[in-house]
Amino acid sequence: MYKDDTIAAVSTPPGEGGIGIVRVSGPQAETIGLGLFRFQRGTAFRSHVLHYGTVIDPATGLLIDEAMAVLMRAPRSYTCEDLLEIHCHGGMLVVEQVLAAALAGGARLADPGEFTRRAFVNGRIDLVQAEAVIDIIQARTDASLQLAQRQREGALSGRLAEIVRSLTRSLAMVEAYIDFPEEDIGEADAGGMRRAVVAALAEIEQLLARFEEGRILREGVSVLIVGKPNAGKSSLLNRLLNENRAIVTHIPGTTRDIIEETINLSGLAVRLLDTAGIRHTEDLVEREGINRALEKIPQADLVVFVVDGSRPFGEEDRFILDAIGSAPVVVARNKSDLPVVIELPPEMHRLPQVSMSAASGEGVDALRALIRSTFLRGEALDSREFVAISRARHRDALVSACAALRHALAESGGDLRLETLAIDLRESLFALGQVTGETTTDDLLDIIFSSFCIGK
Amino acid sequence: MYKDDTIAAVSTPPGEGGIGIVRVSGPQAETIGLGLFRFQRGTAFRSHVLHYGTVIDPATGLLIDEAMAVLMRAPRSYTCEDLLEIHCHGGMLVVEQVLAAALAGGARLADPGEFTRRAFVNGRIDLVQAEAVIDIIQARTDASLQLAQRQREGALSGRLAEIVRSLTRSLAMVEAYIDFPEEDIGEADAGGMRRAVVAALAEIEQLLARFEEGRILREGVSVLIVGKPNAGKSSLLNRLLNENRAIVTHIPGTTRDIIEETINLSGLAVRLLDTAGIRHTEDLVEREGINRALEKIPQADLVVFVVDGSRPFGEEDRFILDAIGSAPVVVARNKSDLPVVIELPPEMHRLPQVSMSAASGEGVDALRALIRSTFLRGEALDSREFVAISRARHRDALVSACAALRHALAESGGDLRLETLAIDLRESLFALGQVTGETTTDDLLDIIFSSFCIGK
Repeated sequence: MYKDDTIAAVSTPPGEGGIGIVRVSGPQAETIGLGLFRFQRGTAFRSHVLHYGTVIDPATGLLIDEAMAVLMRAPRSYTCEDLLEIHCHGGMLVVEQVLAAALAGGARLADPGEFTRRAFVNGRIDLVQAEAVIDIIQARTDASLQLAQRQREGALSGRLAEIVRSLTRSLAMVEAYIDFPEEDIGEADAGGMRRAVVAALAEIEQLLARFEEGRILREGVSVLIVGKPNAGKSSLLNRLLNENRAIVTHIPGTTRDIIEETINLSGLAVRLLDTAGIRHTEDLVEREGINRALEKIPQADLVVFVVDGSRPFGEEDRFILDAIGSAPVVVARNKSDLPVVIELPPEMHRLPQVSMSAASGEGVDALRALIRSTFLRGEALDSREFVAISRARHRDALVSACAALRHALAESGGDLRLETLAIDLRESLFALGQVTGETTTDDLLDIIFSSFCIGK
Repeated sequence: MYKDDTIAAVSTPPGEGGIGIVRVSGPQAETIGLGLFRFQRGTAFRSHVLHYGTVIDPATGLLIDEAMAVLMRAPRSYTCEDLLEIHCHGGMLVVEQVLAAALAGGARLADPGEFTRRAFVNGRIDLVQAEAVIDIIQARTDASLQLAQRQREGALSGRLAEIVRSLTRSLAMVEAYIDFPEEDIGEADAGGMRRAVVAALAEIEQLLARFEEGRILREGVSVLIVGKPNAGKSSLLNRLLNENRAIVTHIPGTTRDIIEETINLSGLAVRLLDTAGIRHTEDLVEREGINRALEKIPQADLVVFVVDGSRPFGEEDRFILDAIGSAPVVVARNKSDLPVVIELPPEMHRLPQVSMSAASGEGVDALRALIRSTFLRGEALDSREFVAISRARHRDALVSACAALRHALAESGGDLRLETLAIDLRESLFALGQVTGETTTDDLLDIIFSSFCIGK
């Protein structure tokens, strides 16, 4: 439920830095600002102007810090409310004390994402645009950032709004016929309505078809590299890591045995998983390492099976192949710089594969392209117009909308039963409204915004 | 050497947050801002006004983020130069891309502390005020923050400036007499000069006397807790930790064996050191744990020796006492809730000590006060006027100034030798100028500002 009180939080990341920002939003923002801020010149805030001065603890009168303060008056602010920002030195204690002064002045500590939630509640942005904000903050590759920015700008909202407008017109017509039961529905109206529903269905299905790519762009994928000792797994991993300078993060393994590195594969965030066990032991422990790697197979989005092309396909390869089973896999026939000895078993012929050499680098680009194309078509990465839903929440709502529209079309095959049609159209509109937030419950909003950081 | 180019850096702490700021300072700041920022309304910056718009990659024209931009025109800015700030969403990739756009626009990546260094070079603040900025950012307790704020406001600079003014007047007088050798120095002038030097010396000596407290406020102290198994060390540690809700940080041990927690002891940041080995083993390994604890004794600012008052002073206690030797120590006679059995050896009678019970909490406040009073007198913590130097750099310079002034006084005991006196006065002024930065070399400035964070 929307609360009309005033909230405050630290809006910069935790830690030490040059600047720390405390944000205050709500009807009391200006009063709180006047209470804790001493202007060097003047005594009042001018909207959107940075004022220099000091922050005082109103209780003790003690100086907390020199600071810049800015008040952005409603509705020209992030939240559409009066929004105060105090910019102080970026020390953890300083920022904490400025926040404490704002809270003492009457603000309540903001929940995660509550500033953005207010922007949504006050109608500045819809729910998919609000969700895009957290996607922007968490984006790890250019492509995922661009997708999130398009969503924030309203590209997805616009597509949905068009569908909603068209279906709303149809619903209005149906309701008009229901209100005047003496009128039979005209041939032209029935045909137009049918075409509108078919078009809406096609639009939604297109968005649904892109969900997987949207999700993958947003979340990235995990790729597990498996192979027997000396197949060249480590060299391949190093090559993928070294050649991709745009390493976006280094996540220490959750266990000591798993090494995880995230690389940016032309816009696709790929978490490469390797097992330390396989890399560093040469004895019986090795088999244990392999077993651990194999246990990870079901959790990976893709398995890269590295085989040594210069040696026969052996018992260990067979063991790994069996463990992979029907999991998504690409085969890297490594050591193409050496004479080819391996003969792959017939059941591997149908698997996507590349011949490559981790040593020379030959074929590594082909492997990279193969991994990418497993997940994304060119359009998702290359087009500036690519618009996709990217959350399971969106997909579930659109699937509901589709089901209602299909039902409407099936019903309208013979006689148009207006009451049923109205129900189907209302259902589809309700489902679409859940995506943009028009028909979203407070409980769902709580869940969505709880994934935000504090201060956003 | 001062460079007249334009610098840029991320000024918010690294990580994800609501807001990220990229700062650009120098003559090109406005041009760079106009190149990468698209105003929603208008086309020009008004100084100190936050403008809403978008940041564009000038090379590709691609949108990077929606943002607020503000230009603070020289000299009304942190650096006294044209200063541009771009406030975007606080995602690591977004912030990085905005920075990249600023760099592509002609800025150079700023060195650590370079914005503050420019504020110093451009005369807005002196060197001790610049140093106070990093102290503010790193402050962990109210008292250290207050000390740093006073230093930033110029309290220390003001004291030093007074001394410098007085000595400069004396030097001018001496030089006048040197320029007119026919004049003998008058009795009144000689006496006045002597009084000025004595007063300056006394002032500097007072600042030096407070150095240790200033340093301790700024840096905090380390306290090592030692004691045989079951003396109650862990309970004491827990009580100190639990009762001090203002725990300012949790630093994971640098080795697996050392546990380090920082508590705020009424304004004094105290790093409590305990050894995990002592806490969790009960056998021969224990002795090894004790040995490791004892090795830490020389590095600690204070040792708290916990003895079990309900048991006799034993062989292990003796072993620990010998290891402590002449290190600063306070004795905690624990388990005062049980019948007192222990008899401390005579050489321990002179040591500061409290009777206490970690179990009931009795005497823990007394121990806390004892620890505090070992380091700080009341004035340092309670007075809002407490001004102190807090860096070895300051102390070394003031010691040099003192030496020169003492030499001047010794010389002037009999005949006033004007040339020698002039040299002494110049030396003392040079030393004082090193504190405020008037006579500081670029190499020293490099060292001082390298301890700053990037973007400050």
